[in-house]
Amino acid sequence: MARFMDVHHDMRGITADQLLKAHEADLAIEKDEGVHFEHSWADPQSGLVYCLSEAPSAEAVQRVHERAGHRADEIHPVPLQV
Amino acid sequence: MARFMDVHHDMRGITADQLLKAHEADLAIEKDEGVHFEHSWADPQSGLVYCLSEAPSAEAVQRVHERAGHRADEIHPVPLQV
Repeated sequence: MARFMDVHHDMRGITADQLLKAHEADLAIEKDEGVHFEHSWADPQSGLVYCLSEAPSAEAVQRVHERAGHRADEIHPVPLQV
Repeated sequence: MARFMDVHHDMRGITADQLLKAHEADLAIEKDEGVHFEHSWADPQSGLVYCLSEAPSAEAVQRVHERAGHRADEIHPVPLQV
C-alpha cells in the first residue's frame, strides 16, 4: 500500500455537504479497489479539492473516484510524510 | 484561524530526512506568525510537496516558509475538510 494525494481542479462552489457526500460516495465503494480515502480538503473559491488516500496504485484511486462520479485531474504518490 | 494547503513544485529528490528538517525549520519559527504546520507530504519523483497548516492568513504561511528557506509556489485556503 502507498499513500496518494489527488487533486480536483473544477469544484468551484462546492459546499461542506457536497464534499461530505462525495467523500461518502468514495468510502462506499473504496474496498472494491483496496483503497482508503483518509481526508479531503476543499477550496470552494478556486475549485481545488485535495484527497489523501492509501491505495495499491494511482489507477485504483482513479477507478474509485470515477465510479463515484468525480474523476481526479492529478494523482501523485506521496511516499514521504511528516 | 483558517486552514491552508500550500504546494512546493521543485523539491525533486527530497529525502525523508530533508522533509523532516524542513518541517522542523517551520515549526521552530511558526509561532512568530501564529501559524501551525500540521502535516507535509512529498513526492521526491515529481518534486511536489504539500503542506497543511492552520494560520491567520496565506501571507503568514508564506512568511514562515520564506524565513525557513522554502518559499511556497501555491497557497490555497481550504475551509472545507472531511
